[in-house]
Amino acid sequence: MDQEIIARLINRITAAGLDAIVALSPENVTYVSGFVVPSQSLMRWRHAACIVTSDGKISMVAIDMEATTVKAHAGIDDLRIYREFSDDPMDKLAEAVKDLKLDHGKVAIEMEFLPAKDFATLQKNLPNVNWSAADPIFNKARQIKTAGELALLRSLSKLTDNAIGTALRSAKIGMSEMELAGTLLTTLFAGGAESYKLMIIASGERSEFPNVGPSARKLQHGDIIRMEIFGQKSGYLTGVCRTAVVGDATAEQYKIWSNLIECKYLVLELIKPGASCPEIYRKFLEKFGQLGFDPISFVAHGIGLHLHEEPYMGRYGNEIVEAGMVGAFEPLVYIPGRFGMQNKDMFCVTDKGCELLSDVTPTDTLLRVA
Amino acid sequence: MDQEIIARLINRITAAGLDAIVALSPENVTYVSGFVVPSQSLMRWRHAACIVTSDGKISMVAIDMEATTVKAHAGIDDLRIYREFSDDPMDKLAEAVKDLKLDHGKVAIEMEFLPAKDFATLQKNLPNVNWSAADPIFNKARQIKTAGELALLRSLSKLTDNAIGTALRSAKIGMSEMELAGTLLTTLFAGGAESYKLMIIASGERSEFPNVGPSARKLQHGDIIRMEIFGQKSGYLTGVCRTAVVGDATAEQYKIWSNLIECKYLVLELIKPGASCPEIYRKFLEKFGQLGFDPISFVAHGIGLHLHEEPYMGRYGNEIVEAGMVGAFEPLVYIPGRFGMQNKDMFCVTDKGCELLSDVTPTDTLLRVA
Repeated sequence: MDQEIIARLINRITAAGLDAIVALSPENVTYVSGFVVPSQSLMRWRHAACIVTSDGKISMVAIDMEATTVKAHAGIDDLRIYREFSDDPMDKLAEAVKDLKLDHGKVAIEMEFLPAKDFATLQKNLPNVNWSAADPIFNKARQIKTAGELALLRSLSKLTDNAIGTALRSAKIGMSEMELAGTLLTTLFAGGAESYKLMIIASGERSEFPNVGPSARKLQHGDIIRMEIFGQKSGYLTGVCRTAVVGDATAEQYKIWSNLIECKYLVLELIKPGASCPEIYRKFLEKFGQLGFDPISFVAHGIGLHLHEEPYMGRYGNEIVEAGMVGAFEPLVYIPGRFGMQNKDMFCVTDKGCELLSDVTPTDTLLRVA
Repeated sequence: MDQEIIARLINRITAAGLDAIVALSPENVTYVSGFVVPSQSLMRWRHAACIVTSDGKISMVAIDMEATTVKAHAGIDDLRIYREFSDDPMDKLAEAVKDLKLDHGKVAIEMEFLPAKDFATLQKNLPNVNWSAADPIFNKARQIKTAGELALLRSLSKLTDNAIGTALRSAKIGMSEMELAGTLLTTLFAGGAESYKLMIIASGERSEFPNVGPSARKLQHGDIIRMEIFGQKSGYLTGVCRTAVVGDATAEQYKIWSNLIECKYLVLELIKPGASCPEIYRKFLEKFGQLGFDPISFVAHGIGLHLHEEPYMGRYGNEIVEAGMVGAFEPLVYIPGRFGMQNKDMFCVTDKGCELLSDVTPTDTLLRVA
């Protein structure tokens, strides 16, 4: 547990006039406990939950199967274990709420995660609780990283960037996207990542598709390769994307790449405390618009325990940049029927400006591989 | 889309007296559409949904960001695209329900997945729909695999088994669990897997912990290594676990391993159409009980689009084995404060008995590595 995180949550609980909040999603259970319950994100009925009260009490609910793992790592004294198959985890959670004398209290829970069936069980067990949505409270708290979170995200950004650069530089004509995936993951894990999310390896005609994983497609001369991955450690994520060309790019592709990198430096310059998120997007659009392709609806988003967090810097939303925010910006083009190019960099907001966290693989010149 | 799957679902919809069911979880959207919507499982607000009506109409809801990918791969004509940030996917889903003239209908939806907030939106938009739980219908349908599903699961089982065997045989004193992870994933991806779930690499004193990923821990003489992974392709999963010893095992460890492998062959013999799932577990317990360690509450579970599916063969539940079921059995011990050993094999139920799908890495003798 990070005591600074708990203190910040208690402030927000109090400010919202609540008696407690309940973390239920994998990312918020990790946020409170500092620990990743291994199978929580794999099987949605294997619920885990953390309750934080306005007076600083913390309770946790976890499955019997992983009781030893949770006990050894989470360091929460009030740990309540339910039996898979024969106990309903919501009954155990309701029991904890009652023991904390919150059964007539104001309790916020993650309504965007809590399944409808489980909410019905809670309402039945706790008819006098005044339920509200905890999602905005957690989302807002998680935007500003602690020193511990920032150190982890910084080193993980470099590690992820290095793995992508290493994998792209290993690319050769005739190699499959799957083989590139092997090199990417070997480098990522050897560097210390524990997991990953959203591995995109899209070459040639596949490069135009957002969010597609590696296939058996073999590299050919002239292919564009878009490679993105979110490395994961202790539950935290960092996303980096690089683009390479097999052999030589066309003049148009070089021109697009130059624009995307100009956008990178523009956004890096614009992100600073006090800046308006939609204004950053508008200024990005002016530069990007020179290419004449359709933009996506954002150029940057927050990252931490989830691969997309608020604030978005885009067409929607109206947030102000604050010191301690961490995220990624990603100028990109997807040209239907042709190809796609994308560059994604991790940043954190400092007191005065913006620090580039993913500074390992050079991007100023489009990477050429053989 | 697999027409056999759609036909089976329509039978179940009709038998349940429903007008339609709505798939909303990643696994059930893939079950209906035959396609993995890339970022659905990564960001829970990026909902995707498939409606199947009792008269065979199919509609799909997907996000604008991935419209091109879904259009190119899912092959569903009635595809409704919502805009991220400005549209609520539940409004789009409600619109589809109305267009299908189901707004006074009996509609089952996944109550164990649908977030409480989204259910409230649907209820507001569709006050006259008679909602019920679709979860048991999908779970039951998915238990019996089609020929296409079985072929995929068979080849993926061998691929996963081979990757684990290859990684374990590469183990050497001084190598870290992370390095083993690299070899495991390289082999898995090079073989054709697109993703994976639940990579367990637990050596030495870590081998007693269920469901822990690789760490920086370096292999030492005498370590037990438990290695499990679920390889994933086209959304489908196969889980295999093997155990190895670095150097030489103790007499007790050899004895445990012999028992686990006797359990393997016992369970393989017991699984056949008509067998009772809890009875298989009871017979397993008789053999396993000779060791004197605590068992977990099941010895086998179904696998397919989810890494744990019904039926469980365990202390709870009362299902009967049927031809076409696919799953894994996994005799294991976790000895607190000491070590753990585990062997997990994929099987499918044939007309007369049980086929071992993961038959690549020999298990009869405990694998010794240097």
